[in-house]
Amino acid sequence: MMSSDCSDTASLSALPPGGHRAVARCDALGVAPYSEEKDQLFRPYLSASYRATCDCIAGWMQSAGMKTRLDAAGNLVGRYEGLTPDAPALLIGSHIDSVRDGGRYDGMLGVLMSVELVAHYAAQGRRFPFALEVIGFGDEEGSRFPAAMLTSRAVAGLLKEVPADMQDAAGITLQDALAAEGLALERMPEAARKPEEILAYLEAHIEQGPVLEAENRAVGVVTAIAAQYRFRVRMKGVAGHAGTMPMTLRQDALAAAAEAVLAIEKIGQSGPSDLVATVGQLTVVPGVPNVVPGEVIFSIDVRAGDAAVRNAATAEIRTALEALAARRKVTLEISLQQDLPATPCDAALTDMLSEAAQSVTGTVPRRMVSGAGHDAMIVAALAPVCMLFIRCEGGISHNPAEAVNPSDVEQAFQVMTRFIEDFAGRRP
Amino acid sequence: MMSSDCSDTASLSALPPGGHRAVARCDALGVAPYSEEKDQLFRPYLSASYRATCDCIAGWMQSAGMKTRLDAAGNLVGRYEGLTPDAPALLIGSHIDSVRDGGRYDGMLGVLMSVELVAHYAAQGRRFPFALEVIGFGDEEGSRFPAAMLTSRAVAGLLKEVPADMQDAAGITLQDALAAEGLALERMPEAARKPEEILAYLEAHIEQGPVLEAENRAVGVVTAIAAQYRFRVRMKGVAGHAGTMPMTLRQDALAAAAEAVLAIEKIGQSGPSDLVATVGQLTVVPGVPNVVPGEVIFSIDVRAGDAAVRNAATAEIRTALEALAARRKVTLEISLQQDLPATPCDAALTDMLSEAAQSVTGTVPRRMVSGAGHDAMIVAALAPVCMLFIRCEGGISHNPAEAVNPSDVEQAFQVMTRFIEDFAGRRP
Repeated sequence: MMSSDCSDTASLSALPPGGHRAVARCDALGVAPYSEEKDQLFRPYLSASYRATCDCIAGWMQSAGMKTRLDAAGNLVGRYEGLTPDAPALLIGSHIDSVRDGGRYDGMLGVLMSVELVAHYAAQGRRFPFALEVIGFGDEEGSRFPAAMLTSRAVAGLLKEVPADMQDAAGITLQDALAAEGLALERMPEAARKPEEILAYLEAHIEQGPVLEAENRAVGVVTAIAAQYRFRVRMKGVAGHAGTMPMTLRQDALAAAAEAVLAIEKIGQSGPSDLVATVGQLTVVPGVPNVVPGEVIFSIDVRAGDAAVRNAATAEIRTALEALAARRKVTLEISLQQDLPATPCDAALTDMLSEAAQSVTGTVPRRMVSGAGHDAMIVAALAPVCMLFIRCEGGISHNPAEAVNPSDVEQAFQVMTRFIEDFAGRRP
Repeated sequence: MMSSDCSDTASLSALPPGGHRAVARCDALGVAPYSEEKDQLFRPYLSASYRATCDCIAGWMQSAGMKTRLDAAGNLVGRYEGLTPDAPALLIGSHIDSVRDGGRYDGMLGVLMSVELVAHYAAQGRRFPFALEVIGFGDEEGSRFPAAMLTSRAVAGLLKEVPADMQDAAGITLQDALAAEGLALERMPEAARKPEEILAYLEAHIEQGPVLEAENRAVGVVTAIAAQYRFRVRMKGVAGHAGTMPMTLRQDALAAAAEAVLAIEKIGQSGPSDLVATVGQLTVVPGVPNVVPGEVIFSIDVRAGDAAVRNAATAEIRTALEALAARRKVTLEISLQQDLPATPCDAALTDMLSEAAQSVTGTVPRRMVSGAGHDAMIVAALAPVCMLFIRCEGGISHNPAEAVNPSDVEQAFQVMTRFIEDFAGRRP
């Protein structure tokens, strides 16, 4: 599949390596044929647009002196050898796939900045005691098959078996989608890397939140990917006629749920700044204007960098909900839907990344927890990881309005070069 | 269409006239062929089950000495002449149609108690200076065509024209449904009665609320049918990622709506006991667990016996919502969907009904506002009206679990006979 530089974006190659070119290339890949849709960006794993995108990036990788391949899980990998052949690698990257109607920078910016880094060193003819490997993960979003981070799990050696009957919305199985690329479902686990091959993993990603913008910072350093709980709550009161049920006799499930929403918000606000607690989904039964709600079902999502913080907040929420349910004579059922542990980034790498950021920006960088999941949390099972966040406009992501300031990306690029050089300098 | 007593319920005719027989007859009419469905009660206007029900009730009316007819709007009318032919009538009744999966007593109990009253006097050979007319309204619920109380509006002379293209869910027009009964759409307004023909209207109905049960009373006297406002509210904040949007930077539309729900509840609780304020419908956009809600749309239903009370509560709600929306930086749109004026029952008739209730039950009856609409609110445009409420189990209605205590119905029957006799005694 490896083609040369894609002709329609060839003019971009005239730009020097760096953050500006990474942004311009993200923009170039934001439209068909690099999207399934003409009027929006949607690049699902193993689609025709995914293939076109891999072809294009592979061309850029090759121009930057990398050898390219699709691994057994369909990830795009480019390798720039170190001073000695077959040296272990510093892995740099992010993901290639996008959500439906997504933005141009989520994932892709981290992949293309990694290509720029290699291009930068290749232009200087500079090599390190380790190889640089750039990886574009195929499936981070889970936007085609009902499983997210499938391909980073394969790389991290966490993918022991894949359900053969897993299908996309059109009924195409993962098996058939892989076969169309010359890949085999049963061989996906062969994408696993040996720990001795990978020294560390560095991922740059847009923040997807508003903190850096609010603090007027171009970049931030991620200390951990948050621990997450997701619950489903059902409160049952007694339905009644909105006209004939006096206020004093009501057991209104929505009024109870409203109290719960405010209690959850208050508990979320009372913790450290990386604690978040959200009710995003709420359904009223029967949900008609002239019936006092008999039942409400809602979600709770609680995240914090430290699982202990998340757990304490969750316990507080549970206590508050039990108290108000008892007071309002509604029943309460809370069921756990998801429990993701926190993934701390490697402390030494994170310090090194912070120092690099400080030397580039002139200020001590913001250290922050990532409330969103990233491939880094999976790769952490294979190698020490660190993550650099880049400011995005309004904190908006998973949306065509996603935007970055190219000069922020240029700063992030400088931080990453500094990191790589420090990393080389400190290795024995 | 007028048949003799329906054979499958003939055994009920062996019971003496009164409340017990009214309940037994409601039960008999709670199943097919008096329902469209085998496993639930659904008796829409002008359906086959509606026709079968009218046939059956007409037989009972005839046995009670009434002359029966379907009026031009499809209402079933039975007339028991007074001491002189063509005397004006005291009209008594309620509605024959039911909601889908409804209860056996909503509407039907008032119709069949009226039949019992006439049967009671016919058995004694007793006539009054006025005729007794029993009416079973065809369409109170609006459960077939998108218009409620169509047939009481026709009787009250309020139906000037009917949209010819009004259809039921199956695409059958009202015109065709009427034609199947030998009726004509354009002649529906001919069901209108002249004010001089109707002295007064008395309607007995299950309470459809829990007040009488909570106060351990068999019956209550309705002073007014509540004024009602219905609003649609839209609150818009800013959607965000549940993991990456810090609590301090959120403009969460659901948290704002939750505060609104509690404010509305509190204002509803702070007024007189007949004031009710309800949020029955609430929709979250986008409504997924990992997104901070950007928008919430909800309903507000406010009712009170006195429009001034409703209006004051509504003004208070509006002020509270504006304040919290401003504080939470969400936008607020409130649009009026429905404004029904209050319908006071006739004061003299209501006093007479109260005295009758007091003489039967031995206590001053509960005077109460009906939060639900009834045909009486329409008939009030034609004649003075009064209404008697009968306790129902748990306040449950529009539900197969609807239940009444036959001895309550027997008491209500006694109250109604006392009312009719007093009404006769006080007429010049």
